[in-house]
Amino acid sequence: MECKYCKLIKNLDDVVLETKHWKAKLSDEQSYLGRCVVFSKRHTADLSELNQAEWEDLRNMVIKLEGGIRVSLGARMFNWACLMNNAYQERSPVPHVHWHVRPRYDKKVKIGGVLFEDREFGHNYDRRRHRVISKEIREVVVKKIISGIRR
Amino acid sequence: MECKYCKLIKNLDDVVLETKHWKAKLSDEQSYLGRCVVFSKRHTADLSELNQAEWEDLRNMVIKLEGGIRVSLGARMFNWACLMNNAYQERSPVPHVHWHVRPRYDKKVKIGGVLFEDREFGHNYDRRRHRVISKEIREVVVKKIISGIRR
Repeated sequence: MECKYCKLIKNLDDVVLETKHWKAKLSDEQSYLGRCVVFSKRHTADLSELNQAEWEDLRNMVIKLEGGIRVSLGARMFNWACLMNNAYQERSPVPHVHWHVRPRYDKKVKIGGVLFEDREFGHNYDRRRHRVISKEIREVVVKKIISGIRR
Repeated sequence: MECKYCKLIKNLDDVVLETKHWKAKLSDEQSYLGRCVVFSKRHTADLSELNQAEWEDLRNMVIKLEGGIRVSLGARMFNWACLMNNAYQERSPVPHVHWHVRPRYDKKVKIGGVLFEDREFGHNYDRRRHRVISKEIREVVVKKIISGIRR
């Protein structure tokens, strides 16, 4: 079976950071402002399969992405999760390593006039939340993160 | 404020693996058989604060722990999460880097006559589940993981 992520990675929208071995894009779901997905560029099925160069470069991604989102959006801390459960709903699972990164906020943030509030700060993120934002606001968020990373 | 984890780490029960910079213990909560917490031995507040040696050694921990639990308990895949939300309920938060590791199973497993079943396999773990197992079964699980790592 083909890996849908390997295909997806080649044409990602809303990329905020690309390193040698990883690509980070803004998630469609923005309940937690600046939520991103970080994809391994090589097809790897689990964390144990990452080679040393990929692992070291992941640290680079973590530092730059956290730093950039802190500076640009005011995130207080971050939740990182590598799950890949959905892939195992298939008869022949094709998992591909990716991270869910949720910035968390101890205060309200306004972007282009739109208010973002982390109502669960200090607690687990709420998986039921699903907030879609306009293309215009997405672009502003992407640009802010990129400029935060490059600061 | 003092870090409760720095204190805790010195006297952990049910340690399954200690590396140069990390310590893994079996969690009290065992809905997902072999669930562990992996603590940074040095006080670090977030992933960006880990130094290169700690980050490289984390890869070592991931590979050994996943491999050991696969071999000894039959886990199919793993969910890794670094959250640390609860620390931010305090007025002066003292987060300490630790990972929640949930092995996931596509079949039932029996340990010492006790049945474990991952009813959410292929989906997110259920945070509401809270399964406490007897001291005897815990010891069996710890020993199995240790022998799996040493195989």
